[in-house]
This record gives sequence, C-alpha cells and structure tokens, in this order.
Amino acid sequence: MSRWPSMLDSRDRGLAYGDGVFETLRVTAEGRIPLLPLHLARLEQGACALGIPMPEPACVDQALQQAGIALAGAGVIKLQLTRGAGGRGYLPPAHPKPNLLWQTSDLPVWQEQDRRDGIVMGLCSQPLYPDVLAGHKHLNRLPQVMARAEVARQGWQEGLLLSSRRQPLEATAMNLFARFDEGWWTPDLAAAGCGVGGVMRRWLLADLASRGEPVSCDLRPLSQLCHAQGVFLSNSVVGVLPVRKLAQWQWAVPDSVRVLQARVDALFAA
Amino acid sequence: MSRWPSMLDSRDRGLAYGDGVFETLRVTAEGRIPLLPLHLARLEQGACALGIPMPEPACVDQALQQAGIALAGAGVIKLQLTRGAGGRGYLPPAHPKPNLLWQTSDLPVWQEQDRRDGIVMGLCSQPLYPDVLAGHKHLNRLPQVMARAEVARQGWQEGLLLSSRRQPLEATAMNLFARFDEGWWTPDLAAAGCGVGGVMRRWLLADLASRGEPVSCDLRPLSQLCHAQGVFLSNSVVGVLPVRKLAQWQWAVPDSVRVLQARVDALFAA
Repeated sequence: MSRWPSMLDSRDRGLAYGDGVFETLRVTAEGRIPLLPLHLARLEQGACALGIPMPEPACVDQALQQAGIALAGAGVIKLQLTRGAGGRGYLPPAHPKPNLLWQTSDLPVWQEQDRRDGIVMGLCSQPLYPDVLAGHKHLNRLPQVMARAEVARQGWQEGLLLSSRRQPLEATAMNLFARFDEGWWTPDLAAAGCGVGGVMRRWLLADLASRGEPVSCDLRPLSQLCHAQGVFLSNSVVGVLPVRKLAQWQWAVPDSVRVLQARVDALFAA
Repeated sequence: MSRWPSMLDSRDRGLAYGDGVFETLRVTAEGRIPLLPLHLARLEQGACALGIPMPEPACVDQALQQAGIALAGAGVIKLQLTRGAGGRGYLPPAHPKPNLLWQTSDLPVWQEQDRRDGIVMGLCSQPLYPDVLAGHKHLNRLPQVMARAEVARQGWQEGLLLSSRRQPLEATAMNLFARFDEGWWTPDLAAAGCGVGGVMRRWLLADLASRGEPVSCDLRPLSQLCHAQGVFLSNSVVGVLPVRKLAQWQWAVPDSVRVLQARVDALFAA
C-alpha cells in the first residue's frame, strides 16, 4: 500500500478527480514528527468523509519510516492517500484499493526578518466558495493554486481568501489568527463551510484553551481586522508567521504573538 | 509530451492538486472522433484559464493516434493535460512542463430500454457550489465523485445537482435539458458560476440554433421542471438520454427529444 516516490498508475483516481487526501508533516533534525497524531487523525477523518479505507497503521508507519530515511534530518514529508484506480467514471469502486504515497522536501526558507517583523499579505480577488468536503485536506486544490498564482503575480508573500460575503477565511496555505484586546480570534471555517482546518490551528486552539486564554471562533467582516493588535498565519510547517501588512492596514507584532511563535518553534527544536 | 497509459511521476501537480483538465471523447467504429474540434477547443480554453501551456497540435495528434490504435474500433478516449511537476507548494512553476496523458475504455453500456423510455434520476442532497474555474473540465471533481456515490447508494441511474438556491444545474456527468411548450431549455451555467459546459451541450445548442428552434438558457426553480413536456440529459459519450422520473415527477419521451437523440446517434454511426 505504500510506494516509493516515483511512478503512479495513471488511472489512479487521485489524478483523475483529485479523489484523495494529503498531509504535510514537518520533521525535526532528530527525525521526530511532533504533530503526527493530529496529522493522522485528520488524514483518517478526511479518508472517512470520502469513503476511502484508511491504510493499516503498519503501512503508514512503513511509509513514514521510508520517508524519514530518505530525508535523513529536518524537512517535510508529504503523505497522499488516494482511492486508487477503478470504478466507472466518477462512481467510486465498491472495493477500493487505496494508494498511500510519500514525498520528501526541504523545509521552506523564510527569512528571519519575515518571521520577526511579519510578511506582506494581499487580498485575493476570487472568493473561497463552500465545499462539500470543507475542512478536509483533499486533493481538489485548484482554488488555492489559482490564488497562489495571484499572490506571485502581485508580489505579495501570502494572500487572504475571503468568503463571497467578504469575511476573512484563511490564506492560500495557512490559517488566519488575530489578536484583539479581548483575546484571540480565528475564522469559524465550519460555519463558513469552506477552508482547511489546519493541524497547527488545532494545536494552537488546544494550547490556548489549556492555558485559559480566550479564543473566539466566528465569522467577521474584513473591516474588523483593522481593530486587531496583531495578525498572524499558521501551518504545521512554518509554525506562526506574523503579518505586518494587509491591503491598507499595518500591524506591529505583539508580544503575545511572539510568545506563541516561540512555543511552536520549541515543538520543532531538535 | 504524450505518454503511454501506464505510469506517471507521483509529483505531478495533476495528482497533487487536480491541477489540470481533461476530455472524454467518443470514437466511432471507424475510428473517427466526430466532436473533436469542440473537445480540443474546450481543452484549450480550460488550459488557458489555468495558465497551462497547450501542447503542440502534433503532440495531441500523436496521443490521439496512439489511443486510437490501442482502441481499434468504437470506444472512449480520455485525454488529460496536467501542469506537470514543479513549483513550490500550490505556486505553479514559472515554466511548466505539462503532461498529456491518454487512456482508452469501452463504450458504457446503456440498456436500449433506458435510451428509449428514459432513466430514473434522483435529487442529490449536496448543492453544487460555485467554482473559480466554473465551466471548465478540470481535475477537481470530488463534488461529482461524492454525488455519484450517492446516486449508487440510492439506486438511481443519475443524480440532479442543484444550486444552493435549489435551481437545477446538471447531472453528475451529464448536462440537463428540458422541452417546454415554448421551446428548449438548459440551465445557464455561466450565470450559476458552476458546472461543466459539456461539448455535447454546445453541439446541441448550435444545432438547435441552426434549425431556428428556440432555446432558453437561464436559471429556474426546480419546481418549473414539472411543467416540462420532457427532460433529457446529454454528454458526448452517451449522446441524448431521456429522463422518465425525477423525485415525484414523471415524463414521457416527446417526439422532439427522440428526433434530437436520433440526430446525435447519427453523429456516431460508423
């Protein structure tokens, strides 16, 4: 069920329809994957939503071990679980034979200055529409591909995706948080019916809750962001990345965000 | 640029993000592809919308020739054009190296009775949401996969996808037409901002227009369908497929639909 990162049956439904889910895992210099349980839980939830049988734990372990050996240190492992080949057209096969694939890559390079002072984000022109499989990290990612291409064309470092009612939802590959006087805030993706529930977002929400820090999770108009003390993005590879500029707004990086960033960095320290 | 239908680089963005487009072409017993110019025009429009360079015509010809030889008679060729490997995450590579892949399959078997008396269609429970790349036949097809799985679970033969405002849009793999007293009707997919503009739909619209038959293209509430003389589905493989039952409604197959069906069948006669 696990494959070396080379060749794939071209009839695989992952290619044909984006019929699968994936995870992007950060590996420490010592070869640990600190957020592995959260990643595997999300992979399983997504597979379940799509009706794709989850591979045996031993298969997943083997794939991760092979990938870890290929990586030989800090980096990123991407796991893809597809429904495999078969079925008639869109109709999934009654007894799918899923494929579990892995790839490795280097850690993305973010300038220390960006991590310290924040990045420049723009407003993507296309809204993020609801999705039958909202929240899951499935392989239908053209909205993100198109938005990321716009980010590059515009010379931004990331792009904010809004709902069709112009409520902030997430960045192309990161979740959105803001710090207000009354506490933390992140968009309610379940209520919006779109977006990806990031593993780092889950970790942050649990971490903040465990410390008794107030977190609001709801949908707000874009204009509310101008009242924030600070804004940041999160994902499980980059951790916490402050935003210093979005459209006409600018923010400093509040100490509260630096503390959070340091807690996440500590997760990935060797 | 063209490949045998075997193995694909697992880093291809077609697999990673559904970053590509496809066409499903019906081939006659003599090896002709009657709607080829319409298919190639749509492939090119989709590639252009995604920013994927269209392969040279000679590459497409070669792929079709190889597929035709593999098919050796009537059947179906599926062409897939992906952005290939590369880029950083969602960001497309500045100079993509697209992949053109082909597969062949047998013609789907529809019972003569279904083609004559019509099929049973149900109402899919999940709405079809708008799509940044609406109208294009891209590789992000999870909504159709999930809907088609529901069709099978419910024991229907096809499923009608509604907008979030419960306007009929299309079936999982076919476009929707109805015959009213005042003329033909098909949903305005451009206005809905979702769905796939089928090649057979385009052919039918052009054919009806050339004969001076009135065709309305707009969005209507589901309840309007009960006033139809008849309802049918279309795609470029099956042609014209009448619907005899949808939810609480039943229709006979009007002669006007039979005439249309015969005209399309003649396209694919050997």
